[in-house]
Amino acid sequence: MPLTLGELAVRHGLELRGDPDHPVSRVATLRNAGPDAIAFLANPRYRHQLAATRAGAVVLDPSLAGECPGAVLLSRNPYAAYARIAAELYPAPPFPTGISHGASVDPRAEVAPDAGVGPSAVVEAGARIGPRCYVGPGSFVGAHAELGEDSRLVARVTICHGVVLGKRVLVHPGAVIGADGFGLAREPEGWIKVPQTGAVRIGDDVEIGANTTVDRGAIEDTVIEEGVKLDNLIQVAHNVRIGAHTVIAACTGISGSTTIGRRCMIGGAVGIAGHLEIADDTVLTGMTMVSRSLRKPGVYSGALPTDEAARWRRNSARFRHLDELARRVKALEDRLDRDDGGRQERGNDGDGEDE
Amino acid sequence: MPLTLGELAVRHGLELRGDPDHPVSRVATLRNAGPDAIAFLANPRYRHQLAATRAGAVVLDPSLAGECPGAVLLSRNPYAAYARIAAELYPAPPFPTGISHGASVDPRAEVAPDAGVGPSAVVEAGARIGPRCYVGPGSFVGAHAELGEDSRLVARVTICHGVVLGKRVLVHPGAVIGADGFGLAREPEGWIKVPQTGAVRIGDDVEIGANTTVDRGAIEDTVIEEGVKLDNLIQVAHNVRIGAHTVIAACTGISGSTTIGRRCMIGGAVGIAGHLEIADDTVLTGMTMVSRSLRKPGVYSGALPTDEAARWRRNSARFRHLDELARRVKALEDRLDRDDGGRQERGNDGDGEDE
Amino acid sequence: MPLTLGELAVRHGLELRGDPDHPVSRVATLRNAGPDAIAFLANPRYRHQLAATRAGAVVLDPSLAGECPGAVLLSRNPYAAYARIAAELYPAPPFPTGISHGASVDPRAEVAPDAGVGPSAVVEAGARIGPRCYVGPGSFVGAHAELGEDSRLVARVTICHGVVLGKRVLVHPGAVIGADGFGLAREPEGWIKVPQTGAVRIGDDVEIGANTTVDRGAIEDTVIEEGVKLDNLIQVAHNVRIGAHTVIAACTGISGSTTIGRRCMIGGAVGIAGHLEIADDTVLTGMTMVSRSLRKPGVYSGALPTDEAARWRRNSARFRHLDELARRVKALEDRLDRDDGGRQERGNDGDGEDE
Repeated sequence: MPLTLGELAVRHGLELRGDPDHPVSRVATLRNAGPDAIAFLANPRYRHQLAATRAGAVVLDPSLAGECPGAVLLSRNPYAAYARIAAELYPAPPFPTGISHGASVDPRAEVAPDAGVGPSAVVEAGARIGPRCYVGPGSFVGAHAELGEDSRLVARVTICHGVVLGKRVLVHPGAVIGADGFGLAREPEGWIKVPQTGAVRIGDDVEIGANTTVDRGAIEDTVIEEGVKLDNLIQVAHNVRIGAHTVIAACTGISGSTTIGRRCMIGGAVGIAGHLEIADDTVLTGMTMVSRSLRKPGVYSGALPTDEAARWRRNSARFRHLDELARRVKALEDRLDRDDGGRQERGNDGDGEDE
Repeated sequence: MPLTLGELAVRHGLELRGDPDHPVSRVATLRNAGPDAIAFLANPRYRHQLAATRAGAVVLDPSLAGECPGAVLLSRNPYAAYARIAAELYPAPPFPTGISHGASVDPRAEVAPDAGVGPSAVVEAGARIGPRCYVGPGSFVGAHAELGEDSRLVARVTICHGVVLGKRVLVHPGAVIGADGFGLAREPEGWIKVPQTGAVRIGDDVEIGANTTVDRGAIEDTVIEEGVKLDNLIQVAHNVRIGAHTVIAACTGISGSTTIGRRCMIGGAVGIAGHLEIADDTVLTGMTMVSRSLRKPGVYSGALPTDEAARWRRNSARFRHLDELARRVKALEDRLDRDDGGRQERGNDGDGEDE
Repeated sequence: MPLTLGELAVRHGLELRGDPDHPVSRVATLRNAGPDAIAFLANPRYRHQLAATRAGAVVLDPSLAGECPGAVLLSRNPYAAYARIAAELYPAPPFPTGISHGASVDPRAEVAPDAGVGPSAVVEAGARIGPRCYVGPGSFVGAHAELGEDSRLVARVTICHGVVLGKRVLVHPGAVIGADGFGLAREPEGWIKVPQTGAVRIGDDVEIGANTTVDRGAIEDTVIEEGVKLDNLIQVAHNVRIGAHTVIAACTGISGSTTIGRRCMIGGAVGIAGHLEIADDTVLTGMTMVSRSLRKPGVYSGALPTDEAARWRRNSARFRHLDELARRVKALEDRLDRDDGGRQERGNDGDGEDE
């Protein structure tokens, strides 16, 4: 389905410098694009590839237009403009509507007539599958769970009983929404299970990555607000609340009853303890551990960068004695102050102790 | 199924202060409970909510009874008492017995007559599904695997061939028990696979979280003893042994052939190297790396708390030179000792070197 | 299927010291082996078990032959020799060929006649399943995906549309290959999805662990070269390239567009940022964070070892002031230099400042 540059410029409100009748049919990287492809430049890391690109057109910031040898489509937000163009060139494939042979849908479930249920998928009693939804192959939708319109479980997704998804929610394979939270009470003879009687509520336009887990609440619900985007292999524990439009990279874990603000950006493999509050617009860099509430928006870090193993070993051995080292420095300062005092009778200039 | 406070007091051995005929039918948080709900107070963080609660009754420690405006059920372990009451108010839904239409059960498998196999589940030859077990929708039970009585695979669980589960084992969606351990031998032309000929044995009353993986043993079995509770997205490598009643939070990884003691409490995203021994009753806080055996019970930590990114960068840059910093401090001490010695002829007070 | 020691020696090119007619039928650990079992010694940690072993034969390095009371099979690489022997004693069980009752295979898919598709598996239109492949129970193979000959999806594996697997690829349960990469463009009103139009290409002899996720590329493909071995619960983001024969332990995450070299060994729970290059033959120890390219082969580390919690707290509190501590040490050095200068007029010996 080729589109001309003129069509793209008009539909996406972009200024075109180039031949409006030139057709493009696919996307490509600057380096590998041919005349039939559209490319983009958003990450300055790739700017050096601009001069040699053979792309049919490049979506980029107006300030860089002069560096491109061919046609350009100008946008202050070239990545977003590219995303919209790519979505037009690569429409999501249609899914089969109706209930596939090999699916199991309880007669007490409601499936919209224009929704689809793939082979080997299972929909339990009382579940409601909204208009234009797709329950992909091998997925499971538990009793009384609900999918808002245009939601899609790609394949092998688990939606446990009573979980409610908004509209246009996209869930990738292997994700598990609504498994029991990790609630245990200790008794002398071992741990007993605390029933997890809440559910999970997921807002509109949420995307949930492959093999990510979002646990159901202990009493009240776990909540993921609209526009949240979760990458793969993320753990969201019971009664967490994630504010609207927050994005979280892969392998991050959030412990129970923590509230994450809106529009946060959380890096990969971050760990957040339970019962905390993270302010709106907080940024956490990768592999950070958060063990106290962060009430002030800002950028926070917590992981040491890698080093050659031999030097690392020396430094990390010293870390075990860092408190002692600080005390020794204080002792040196005191000693020198005493000596100086004896010689010079000058005033103490503060001990620098900072705990 | 409402129950009266009197019934609850009697069945769970709790002292009631309040109207024994008052009925409750659900659980709720202190803040949101109404007269039909039972609430509890176990975490002191929520004590301030007690005075205003409208709960039909609150389960709490006797010492706090005076702070509650309404009925109370007294327990020295209110969280456990609450768990038992909640289990009574929210009994696990019954599952369909028999083999669902759409399940595949090999005729050489044994399925107890009062067990259930859900739609799209697969049970291979020689597998044994015990009394009152449920093999949930989309689950897989490999050849010669066994489920002890009252065990439940919620949905989309994988139990590989030869794995043995005890009684009352609960496995959440996406968990994989008995995949091959990561055994590789290096040869000049690459890595060759080392057959993983052991299995996994899981004790009674074990709970395994969503998308958690427990690998089969290389030669002997991987073992999870009775009462162990594993959260989501945990990796248990081949030939690990986890002692009875140990609990492990999400995203933790345990490398091969490590033995974890009994009643340990392991935080989230902990990493434990291979071939180690962790003593009974060890506590590991979140994101800790364990690279040596911990033979003495105690609380261990290993993750630095997050900080503002700018300050973090300055401090972590210094970390790369910590060994050098320690040497410089030592040099200062020596220098001062020499100076002092020259002036005062006093003895050296030890060099503080501590490696 | 017992084999004699003589047969094993001949087939695997090993020197035998012992009775060539002695039969063995299984593998066992040194400690628990009986006369019918073959054992091996590769890890020096277990050398002390050699003297008391009752194994029918032990595969070990020639230098240790004298320490074994019974028969030995000598190899300079005993672990690899053991692996080959074990593979012979424990051949992979044959799988049923043909399309199982309860599988859903689109008539436009191509399945080799000697391939197998298990119950509840789904194969979409245009997919190609090569000779002697097995699409295990509950697995999903999306449209136009391809499996090279002798590849095996153990059970409940997801292969998304257009993903291409080489020959002899082994994928463990719950793995998801080809889910959308995490591509988002920010707009004032939230994030919009960037279509992920690339696929995943996986070379020959690759093994992928349980619940591991490998995302499809944004424009070009994500690539895993031949002989790569991935453990469980690993995240490989879009457009990552992993060089041939690299091995990666569980729980590691690799961010988008990073290139990992050949023959690297990456420990568990490592985190690697995006757009980096890691040199061939790089070794990363467990829980390391890599935030810059590593262009020189070597061993790199980045995780602090655990410590008793009380001492850890003192040291990590000091870490928050490490930059200041370094400045104080510098100030002491300067002060002493000034003092010495006044007394001795000796030259400054350098300030040791090292940033």
